[in-house]
Amino acid sequence: MRPTPAWQSTDDGTAALRRVTIERRDLRPDDLAVRVDYCGVCHSDLHRISGTFGAGAVVPGHEFTGTVTAAGTAVTGFAPGDRVAVGTVVDSCGACAMCEAGQENYCYEGATTTYGGTDRHDGTPTQGGYSREYVLRAAFAYPLPAALDPAAAAPLMCAGITMWEPLRAAGIGPGSQVAVAGMGGLGHLGVKLAAALGAHVTVLSRSADKAADARKLGAAELLVSTDEEQVRRARGRFDLILDTISAPHDLSPLLGMAALDGTLSLLGYPLDTTVRIMDLTYGRKKLSSSGTGGRRRTAELLEFCAEHGIAADVETLPSGRVDEALARLGRGDVRYRFVLDLSDLD
Amino acid sequence: MRPTPAWQSTDDGTAALRRVTIERRDLRPDDLAVRVDYCGVCHSDLHRISGTFGAGAVVPGHEFTGTVTAAGTAVTGFAPGDRVAVGTVVDSCGACAMCEAGQENYCYEGATTTYGGTDRHDGTPTQGGYSREYVLRAAFAYPLPAALDPAAAAPLMCAGITMWEPLRAAGIGPGSQVAVAGMGGLGHLGVKLAAALGAHVTVLSRSADKAADARKLGAAELLVSTDEEQVRRARGRFDLILDTISAPHDLSPLLGMAALDGTLSLLGYPLDTTVRIMDLTYGRKKLSSSGTGGRRRTAELLEFCAEHGIAADVETLPSGRVDEALARLGRGDVRYRFVLDLSDLD
Repeated sequence: MRPTPAWQSTDDGTAALRRVTIERRDLRPDDLAVRVDYCGVCHSDLHRISGTFGAGAVVPGHEFTGTVTAAGTAVTGFAPGDRVAVGTVVDSCGACAMCEAGQENYCYEGATTTYGGTDRHDGTPTQGGYSREYVLRAAFAYPLPAALDPAAAAPLMCAGITMWEPLRAAGIGPGSQVAVAGMGGLGHLGVKLAAALGAHVTVLSRSADKAADARKLGAAELLVSTDEEQVRRARGRFDLILDTISAPHDLSPLLGMAALDGTLSLLGYPLDTTVRIMDLTYGRKKLSSSGTGGRRRTAELLEFCAEHGIAADVETLPSGRVDEALARLGRGDVRYRFVLDLSDLD
Repeated sequence: MRPTPAWQSTDDGTAALRRVTIERRDLRPDDLAVRVDYCGVCHSDLHRISGTFGAGAVVPGHEFTGTVTAAGTAVTGFAPGDRVAVGTVVDSCGACAMCEAGQENYCYEGATTTYGGTDRHDGTPTQGGYSREYVLRAAFAYPLPAALDPAAAAPLMCAGITMWEPLRAAGIGPGSQVAVAGMGGLGHLGVKLAAALGAHVTVLSRSADKAADARKLGAAELLVSTDEEQVRRARGRFDLILDTISAPHDLSPLLGMAALDGTLSLLGYPLDTTVRIMDLTYGRKKLSSSGTGGRRRTAELLEFCAEHGIAADVETLPSGRVDEALARLGRGDVRYRFVLDLSDLD
């Protein structure tokens, strides 16, 4: 086994993490050992630590970049020293219709999640990237393009792919009208990616304060979603609305701004929601959702980001300050993603 | 004015209609006068008569076929004696984005509905096709192809187009997997149309009793929706599910059978519905709805039906038996659509 330092939540649901030593498995033939250099702090980490997404102590972290330190005997394509990126899924059955479609994130046998899951071979619980080393199947590590900064690239692996898949599924490109509701970790990458795809991007925000920031990210404009006149004028306008709002909210104004055959994609709020079906009927609109992404689109995203110079806007902290990052994330005090530098664990 | 006999509901919300004489307007330059020959009995007629969709006496009927008896001075393309079909919309603004997209049914200024609406020029209430004559803008009358039986074609104008638009919006064709939930007036046409488009069609039904009927309509098979094993095996299978069920129902089993990027189209139940967003997330599924159709798709549907020999399976009754038709429709006792023969009004 391979002992490695890590930040682990406690059983009591508080956001105080403690430094522990966990064991990574000895490498199987198709495994890589990765030194974790940078790990993003995702909103779902906060949910998991506080008990909203399951209970029990866990090492969070499912968007990280690092450096290969060892490769199993059957691994091809990776060698020690290679820079890699890892996202929310580290294994899947590989045989079901979803895996065959390149959507391992929806594996019918259950994708193995990067933390809080169970290894499908030895049954051990998976422990995340708030640690100095991670061991995973090489098939779920992605070469990190040289053009990408490893700290700023880490959030691409969850926040980024969560925006990329619905953009690609909707066929967004030049001439498309895309709106992004909520300009946090997800939303700010949604703006950048949609703009780089050639879309006209509008940020939907409760106040006009963020207009300059929205434009800096590549948005053409900001629409104040509490201004009824602005909402009315945008009726039927957007081919795709990336809704990253994490609190319960009324979908009617958003659906009213979706175009004929347009899609409202709910990406920040995963619970039961009441839908006024008539809001879908008039204009044949679609309500959708998706969760992170599969291998094919993840690899595509990294290439696209390298080509277009896209990464997250991050605030990087030494991993010892993880509690501070979580507290500030909880109150929305970050532009736009915290990334932990794990080098302080050495 | 043009007096014409008609069947009108009473104010008290009972399903007893009485014979009255209503006035049709004198023809405007762009109007047609149509002798109504056959008018389908739609479930929404029942809702309207009983007060669920608005109150007050009304002449129902919004799917009919007939014969042109007179044309306004500016009308081209129609002459007395021509067979025509009329659906749920008889006018629209003609200038908004929806009208420009050929979706007059979603006109932003409000489409003029065939009954229960208000004429946009003279402000009079519209009265439907349970009458011997109808006067409307020629632009909203469709030539009835010679190959189509006028009684069996009448339901194409509401039930048929309600199935056709989502099939076309989803790009259904050879190789597509389509499911139809509910095999009534809408559903039976959904099966016929999807099969004629080349799709593999599965009827979803609470019992296996309807399997032979489903096959007769063109379905490849029937899946018993209360059989958990059958539902489980159909996981992720259907590109499009046409859900024509008119009572509240759990969407989870249906969404579970939708394919990656597949669509559940709610066409029978228009009220608020609770959606488990996770049902959309896993498989990036879409919940949609639509209501009847625009001029472009309606004309296309009639041509398609003529070419493929498709019309509704109807039970035709003299219009004097309208109360019987409504009562039997209310208890689901019709295969699959009642059509009123209005010639008894002469």
